[in-house]
Amino acid sequence: MTLWGGRFTEPTDEQLRALNDSISFDRRLYRQDIMGSIAYAQAIASAGILTTDEAETIIGGLRDVLAEFEAGTFELKGDEDIHSAVERWLTERIGAVGGKLHTGRSRNDQVATDFRLWVMAATGEVDALLADLQTALVEQAEQHSDTLMPGYTHLQPAQPITAAHWLLSFFWMLARDRERLKETHRRTAVSPLGSGALAGTPFPIDRARLAADLGFHSHSQNSLDAVSDRDFAVEFTFVLALLGTHLSRLAEDVIIYSNPRFGFITLDDRYSTGSSLMPQKRNPDPLELARGKTGRLIGNVTGLLTVLKGLPSTYNKDLQEDKEAVFDSYDTIKILLPVLTAVVQTLKLNPEAMRTALTEDMLATDLADYLVQKGLPFRQAHHVVGQAVSAAAREKVGLSKLSLETLRGLSPLFEADVAEVFDFAASAARRAAPGGTAPAAVREQLAAARLSLGR
Amino acid sequence: MTLWGGRFTEPTDEQLRALNDSISFDRRLYRQDIMGSIAYAQAIASAGILTTDEAETIIGGLRDVLAEFEAGTFELKGDEDIHSAVERWLTERIGAVGGKLHTGRSRNDQVATDFRLWVMAATGEVDALLADLQTALVEQAEQHSDTLMPGYTHLQPAQPITAAHWLLSFFWMLARDRERLKETHRRTAVSPLGSGALAGTPFPIDRARLAADLGFHSHSQNSLDAVSDRDFAVEFTFVLALLGTHLSRLAEDVIIYSNPRFGFITLDDRYSTGSSLMPQKRNPDPLELARGKTGRLIGNVTGLLTVLKGLPSTYNKDLQEDKEAVFDSYDTIKILLPVLTAVVQTLKLNPEAMRTALTEDMLATDLADYLVQKGLPFRQAHHVVGQAVSAAAREKVGLSKLSLETLRGLSPLFEADVAEVFDFAASAARRAAPGGTAPAAVREQLAAARLSLGR
Amino acid sequence: MTLWGGRFTEPTDEQLRALNDSISFDRRLYRQDIMGSIAYAQAIASAGILTTDEAETIIGGLRDVLAEFEAGTFELKGDEDIHSAVERWLTERIGAVGGKLHTGRSRNDQVATDFRLWVMAATGEVDALLADLQTALVEQAEQHSDTLMPGYTHLQPAQPITAAHWLLSFFWMLARDRERLKETHRRTAVSPLGSGALAGTPFPIDRARLAADLGFHSHSQNSLDAVSDRDFAVEFTFVLALLGTHLSRLAEDVIIYSNPRFGFITLDDRYSTGSSLMPQKRNPDPLELARGKTGRLIGNVTGLLTVLKGLPSTYNKDLQEDKEAVFDSYDTIKILLPVLTAVVQTLKLNPEAMRTALTEDMLATDLADYLVQKGLPFRQAHHVVGQAVSAAAREKVGLSKLSLETLRGLSPLFEADVAEVFDFAASAARRAAPGGTAPAAVREQLAAARLSLGR
Amino acid sequence: MTLWGGRFTEPTDEQLRALNDSISFDRRLYRQDIMGSIAYAQAIASAGILTTDEAETIIGGLRDVLAEFEAGTFELKGDEDIHSAVERWLTERIGAVGGKLHTGRSRNDQVATDFRLWVMAATGEVDALLADLQTALVEQAEQHSDTLMPGYTHLQPAQPITAAHWLLSFFWMLARDRERLKETHRRTAVSPLGSGALAGTPFPIDRARLAADLGFHSHSQNSLDAVSDRDFAVEFTFVLALLGTHLSRLAEDVIIYSNPRFGFITLDDRYSTGSSLMPQKRNPDPLELARGKTGRLIGNVTGLLTVLKGLPSTYNKDLQEDKEAVFDSYDTIKILLPVLTAVVQTLKLNPEAMRTALTEDMLATDLADYLVQKGLPFRQAHHVVGQAVSAAAREKVGLSKLSLETLRGLSPLFEADVAEVFDFAASAARRAAPGGTAPAAVREQLAAARLSLGR
Repeated sequence: MTLWGGRFTEPTDEQLRALNDSISFDRRLYRQDIMGSIAYAQAIASAGILTTDEAETIIGGLRDVLAEFEAGTFELKGDEDIHSAVERWLTERIGAVGGKLHTGRSRNDQVATDFRLWVMAATGEVDALLADLQTALVEQAEQHSDTLMPGYTHLQPAQPITAAHWLLSFFWMLARDRERLKETHRRTAVSPLGSGALAGTPFPIDRARLAADLGFHSHSQNSLDAVSDRDFAVEFTFVLALLGTHLSRLAEDVIIYSNPRFGFITLDDRYSTGSSLMPQKRNPDPLELARGKTGRLIGNVTGLLTVLKGLPSTYNKDLQEDKEAVFDSYDTIKILLPVLTAVVQTLKLNPEAMRTALTEDMLATDLADYLVQKGLPFRQAHHVVGQAVSAAAREKVGLSKLSLETLRGLSPLFEADVAEVFDFAASAARRAAPGGTAPAAVREQLAAARLSLGR
Repeated sequence: MTLWGGRFTEPTDEQLRALNDSISFDRRLYRQDIMGSIAYAQAIASAGILTTDEAETIIGGLRDVLAEFEAGTFELKGDEDIHSAVERWLTERIGAVGGKLHTGRSRNDQVATDFRLWVMAATGEVDALLADLQTALVEQAEQHSDTLMPGYTHLQPAQPITAAHWLLSFFWMLARDRERLKETHRRTAVSPLGSGALAGTPFPIDRARLAADLGFHSHSQNSLDAVSDRDFAVEFTFVLALLGTHLSRLAEDVIIYSNPRFGFITLDDRYSTGSSLMPQKRNPDPLELARGKTGRLIGNVTGLLTVLKGLPSTYNKDLQEDKEAVFDSYDTIKILLPVLTAVVQTLKLNPEAMRTALTEDMLATDLADYLVQKGLPFRQAHHVVGQAVSAAAREKVGLSKLSLETLRGLSPLFEADVAEVFDFAASAARRAAPGGTAPAAVREQLAAARLSLGR
Repeated sequence: MTLWGGRFTEPTDEQLRALNDSISFDRRLYRQDIMGSIAYAQAIASAGILTTDEAETIIGGLRDVLAEFEAGTFELKGDEDIHSAVERWLTERIGAVGGKLHTGRSRNDQVATDFRLWVMAATGEVDALLADLQTALVEQAEQHSDTLMPGYTHLQPAQPITAAHWLLSFFWMLARDRERLKETHRRTAVSPLGSGALAGTPFPIDRARLAADLGFHSHSQNSLDAVSDRDFAVEFTFVLALLGTHLSRLAEDVIIYSNPRFGFITLDDRYSTGSSLMPQKRNPDPLELARGKTGRLIGNVTGLLTVLKGLPSTYNKDLQEDKEAVFDSYDTIKILLPVLTAVVQTLKLNPEAMRTALTEDMLATDLADYLVQKGLPFRQAHHVVGQAVSAAAREKVGLSKLSLETLRGLSPLFEADVAEVFDFAASAARRAAPGGTAPAAVREQLAAARLSLGR
Repeated sequence: MTLWGGRFTEPTDEQLRALNDSISFDRRLYRQDIMGSIAYAQAIASAGILTTDEAETIIGGLRDVLAEFEAGTFELKGDEDIHSAVERWLTERIGAVGGKLHTGRSRNDQVATDFRLWVMAATGEVDALLADLQTALVEQAEQHSDTLMPGYTHLQPAQPITAAHWLLSFFWMLARDRERLKETHRRTAVSPLGSGALAGTPFPIDRARLAADLGFHSHSQNSLDAVSDRDFAVEFTFVLALLGTHLSRLAEDVIIYSNPRFGFITLDDRYSTGSSLMPQKRNPDPLELARGKTGRLIGNVTGLLTVLKGLPSTYNKDLQEDKEAVFDSYDTIKILLPVLTAVVQTLKLNPEAMRTALTEDMLATDLADYLVQKGLPFRQAHHVVGQAVSAAAREKVGLSKLSLETLRGLSPLFEADVAEVFDFAASAARRAAPGGTAPAAVREQLAAARLSLGR
């Protein structure tokens, strides 16, 4: 059933109905649709379009249909979309007065209202799940502020770092994601209701009050824009795609670190899976999925931007494509985050394997800094140490095994105290400026993280 | 139920199961999975791994489970994926011998086999739907090889064209899409079966015969590649995305041409929709959806390419993301094409409105060609006619209303016979070289289209 | 020349140099690089690493090299990147002391610093250009708050609107873009300097003061994150891509409205282009480019997200891909916006053509509202008017030409005063709720726009 | 200078010129443009539009301008695009007769011709570079058909494989890329010349001969399609993006395998780079760039698809966006492939490190197959071996160290000959079916690779 058959002489083709109808996915908006209608009924009652009795009848009916949806007993009858379904049910139940609800309203402003309310709720849910993952990272980090591990750049040995520092690096990525979510929420919380199909409403509706009743911060300034603005939807998918890249980077590290050649991390049995053919397998599936699913998150934001590109003013049916991409990104993140949180909570760091992986060439910068302390300009110190590294490689020994004589052959500034450089813990501890890997700095970072988390 | 619990001491977490299991979408592969297993059972029987009796039992069981799927009576029991579901059912029904089916096979080569078979079938289906749309274009074109309409570039009046020529321009885009589909099919038709998990099979399976039994053209050359090659899936989504851009261009034209300011086209009532608020509305929804859904098609190919980017060798769980994007693109095209075919079949061209929209400035090139015939180099002729256009605009008259005197003021080559230039039909008829808009050339084009179509 | 050859026994391959070197595009960061180095020299001087004299020498040298860049006299000598070029020049000029500048610093934190400073400046520039375009829209709108034009949804006639309302609809899209730019700026203004290669700096640098000296709002909390966080770059390209979709929608409208069948808009000669073949042509090239270039803007954000996907922790060379995408999006917007501003400033609206395009079916909603005022529920009123539209179409007359008898045949509520409905200006004027198209509401909207613009 | 000023009363705005002009990038098409014009001059001479003398003059002039371009002496003078530049120069040199060249031709068919010729050449060049990389893979593989290494799935130990098999897995990916390139070439080799601006040419040009003269396989069937078909450009960028994913996967493996925890691979000094801060560093930059640059390749195909989406029929200026994306993808691949070829040629495999990384759990499948040979259904064998793996893990020993008693406790089928299972080389050698990792199968694969390569 559609709301608009009057002027048509032939019924809509069945195949077009299948293409056109959105009920299969927009029924998910039932709560927002009905709450929006309740507020709208109050607004048009205040504007004198409904009598108090009519408003009560309509609102009562809407509460009933909400109850049916909540109970799972609502039955579709070939409805085109959630708006048509609700109005159809209402009219069946309360009679022709139900047909007054749509006065001055269009599905164009209605669906924009519903969808914004939905996204507003969704940003909150994702935010809470992100706080959980951040908490898990902080809690793991608190166990490992003194645990040393190799820090890599270009996946090649760079400098010793603390494991807490590595864990917390993801905390701050998520903190930015949460900031973006909050901003997206604020921009979403602008009510389009009262914009009609495109030109505004001819009825004296109090749009500000209507917006406030529904939890919006403000209302839109231009009805043409209001019915076709989908910035909030694209932004939401973008924020989730960027979040996805962060999760994928965490995933990549954990995948590599749990290969036995590294062995830095052991995943819990509950978060590993096996193979149908190879009995020994323990695969990091949740992390591979976190990495892989970033693809669809990126695809969704790309797809939505493309939908909007080159669209004529105001509402065009193309905009119906907005919802499935948003729902898919949300569902993806919603199923991913709790698993990643559990993975982080249950992952076992292996300090011994990490320690074993520390090699003396990772102290080369410290060795150069030693020469800097003795007065050599850093660039020259870098060159001298480069030659020392090269010599050690030729001799197939660690840097600390080069004789003082060899070192002095490279620079007379080397003295016996050079031996003190070869201490991984001391190297880390030196990097104590804010944001550095030193245990002391990491403890301050943990405090900042806790503060930011409010937990 | 999973196929791989033996070495695990704790059960998989329920939330991970929800993230990890693919049964919700890969059950769609049931036919391919079962046919693949039947052929595989024969292959390992030939290789001496199954006795004839065992093979018969297994194959009989597989035929039964296929029948259950076809009848819609197959019942899932917490199965991880379609492969597990089938093996579980088989073993329940025929006993432990069912456990012999997976000998030497992995889900890695199995799922690649299933998915390739599915895509092979899908390319064929899309191809047939494209032929239908091409046929509709040809049939409409056959009615309009003499109908004149304005041809636009930059959406500004350019030159008169024939409506058939406009319709057929989309025919050739679709012809290229069909060519690409055929090539994708050919590249998909390479059997990975017999590649095991990654290293190949230790059993003496006749891979060539197995491939042929399943309708593949050949088998893969390298097992590591075979289990992780998803080129065919990306290619398929790319071909559909490029097809989508073609449909979106057709849609854009029809949308603009059915705005009443143009009025070139009237959509049939059955393929138009109305508004919940504005009773007069007849909206070209199917075309807007064709245009909008191109966004998701592009998003799907982007997403899949991103999944593959930077993936380590062989199978990684990220590859499980391959199917939903492919299914979504296929479903989108599958629901779109028949509607567009019907739209083209039922759209009413309005030759009168088209004729009204022809304006004399669209003959400016012909006027320049007239001067070229008189010996003026084209570039100068272009300049002279530019001034004539300018003069006509100043005088607010059509080009043909400029006096011969005025024209001769611009170039002495103008003579009384210039009046013959102002004939839209003659202008179109002159463009008779192959591929041109002249009715004669279009009739040849129609013959070529029919030939290419084989219908 | 590179900064790091010490440990290598063979020189880098020339082809790798060509692939690897970033000087061709990162030289654009020279100002940020040098200002960053000046601040860093002060910071390490305060930390006791440089003497006052050394700091003065280095800073003096840096000011000199900046002057050379500004004067265009700086000469590259096979430098790998902007950082190497500056350090090389410095050392050539002031001697080995120049080699002290890099103490405790890595190109990893340096390039992140440079790039953030550049993006901070770029957001400001784009913001100013957007304000110009908004101003042009407001100024055009101020001329047209009473000009009536057809409002379309689905590109089909919907309701009469005012031209100012149409123009202002784009104003608010740009207002959201500017909001996003400001937020991106704030998130970009976090200093990574002092993070070293990945682990932080071992020298007692006052990172807070260093950040403030460079105009950052704060400094990063985690060095591993700081050297590889490119969220700000992706965000910037996203904000520009979303802006691009807004420009493309404006472009699409103007392109369609300047086709002579519409004739609503005439582009100025200075902002139209011609054809090499067709002398009459006036093409809306700048708008087509605005629409088309949205493709590359979307491609850039897609590309950058993909670069980040699946990257291991900390700095990886992949991140060098961040700059060209950002530069390209910025350059695209930078060249586009002033032209679009001029297009808007100079475009001529044709009120007469707009008026001609208004048709009585666009008052169908008003006719339904008339019945609502008489007490009919809207849904029934919609149906009645749908039949009236259908009757008028059958009779091939405007709605206002239907006899009262015919109308009363559809609903007895129609009375003689129905004639008053058929007034386009009155229809628009009724939509006077905030955000509506009524001239009164538009004047309030203009005031709000001016207020938001601060101009 | 433009070719089309005649009807304009005001000059084009300078900023629009900057936005609009394409000479900065399309000058790259000079050779194709001039060769196209030479052939076109011959065609219009044959059609009687030019006298033999005129044709000779024009062709002579075109050869001269080509020589100037080749010599690098051609001077731009504010030309809009390459076509304008060439025509301007020609007319300056040979006089007004130069203005005859554009008779019946438009820049719309001209640029499509030029660009197709360019892409045809580019596909050939990329193909040759791919053959080089394939050759390098084959040559490395030939050294390592017996070298054992761990095969991973999910980056977890799976089964022993041969290093040649790993190397060759990339060979076949590239073989598919080359196949796609060939098909793209064929589809590109369709001449649009003679399509005019959109409607075809009114002059009796022999389009088939013209196409053949320029090396096209055929000519287009519909002029409207011909001037706006950019499928070939999108296809080319897609093929390169998919190629990019293959290169990124090779890169990812090499990056991981050259981390010292693996140590499977040592990159040559010439193909490694260092750090400005850390003297010990040897970074796999070329591989990280191969991985990272896949992002822009994907961005380019996304961007181009988006440009085409929703475009009205025939030529629109948006299509000018086609070239930079194609050039960028081509340049990226062109600079990347030779470096990767050299990397593969010079990379040192470390068989000892590979061998060390083989662990007995990678023989678990072989152990299950052992039980299968004894008659146990595979699924049960898998379960038994899973328990054996679990037992070995508990006892912290290799699988081979489990006592026969322990094993027989799991299944009575275990006998003394189980010891023979624990042989990595034998495990690989068993996988001898076509496409398997056995040295024998790999030697056949090498032969097939050589054959496919034709080298």
